[in-house]
Amino acid sequence: MSVTDGLLENNAGYAAEFSGPLPLPPAKHVAVLACMDARLNVYGALGLGEGEAHVIRNAGGVVTEDAIRSLAISQRLLGTEEIVLIHHTDCGMLTFTDDEFKKSIQEDVGVKPAWAAEAFGDLEADVRQSIARIRTSPFLPRKDSVRGFVFDVATGKLNEVS
Amino acid sequence: MSVTDGLLENNAGYAAEFSGPLPLPPAKHVAVLACMDARLNVYGALGLGEGEAHVIRNAGGVVTEDAIRSLAISQRLLGTEEIVLIHHTDCGMLTFTDDEFKKSIQEDVGVKPAWAAEAFGDLEADVRQSIARIRTSPFLPRKDSVRGFVFDVATGKLNEVS
Repeated sequence: MSVTDGLLENNAGYAAEFSGPLPLPPAKHVAVLACMDARLNVYGALGLGEGEAHVIRNAGGVVTEDAIRSLAISQRLLGTEEIVLIHHTDCGMLTFTDDEFKKSIQEDVGVKPAWAAEAFGDLEADVRQSIARIRTSPFLPRKDSVRGFVFDVATGKLNEVS
Repeated sequence: MSVTDGLLENNAGYAAEFSGPLPLPPAKHVAVLACMDARLNVYGALGLGEGEAHVIRNAGGVVTEDAIRSLAISQRLLGTEEIVLIHHTDCGMLTFTDDEFKKSIQEDVGVKPAWAAEAFGDLEADVRQSIARIRTSPFLPRKDSVRGFVFDVATGKLNEVS
């Protein structure tokens, strides 16, 4: 049995206990942008329930153009007002450089990605960079509450970046 | 108190019960790409525990260039082998068109986004489009298990798209 098949078995148990449907707009009017890291369970770490928050995730929790797209849809069409950014300790994005990663792909398949890998060398600096990208985006109307955190994978605690 | 402050209070409770740290690579060697929708609790719906799977999310659960970036990092640097794609019923992406959304932004702030909003008109067709984008990407080495699902927000059940 594949891992995917096992996850589908788990889903049958989830659906058996499920009560829905809930409204489409997030009840807490908040959007979270976090790293895809497996150890960062956003619903658990923030005590979120179903229907409460948009959760956007990518490698690094970086404010990419696609994250701006998702946040623009979240704010403009679905009424979210606060943004929570989450990076985390022991992040894989600290372990390589864009140049190395793209060169390794080029050597493997002959094609160099036209995109940035968005690796970073300093967690807190990248949280600040993410906040700056949001603040300077013309597409996001609500920037009164944009706060950034580092999740500690050893303690489960969120530490705010000032 | 802001919503973000309330989430931080929740986090204190989570951290108090937390046992870590876990290894960096996902234990189940799987990456999930899902819509950001608030009603889709990926950890709950798939029965995932901390440390088991990469979770990538954006508006629509669309295979964008940024999703390819995240999946490439997931497979090439952190050893994931299976990909699970999740769209869902009652998705906001079914309610507008790219042209309308971008025009509304242009009318609001004077700048038209250079990116696609990635709205879609047919859920299952977009799941298939997402699978096709993965299959044709030169950057992803492992494509033996790429499966797509529609999460039903009324029942909590995942239905596979064939």
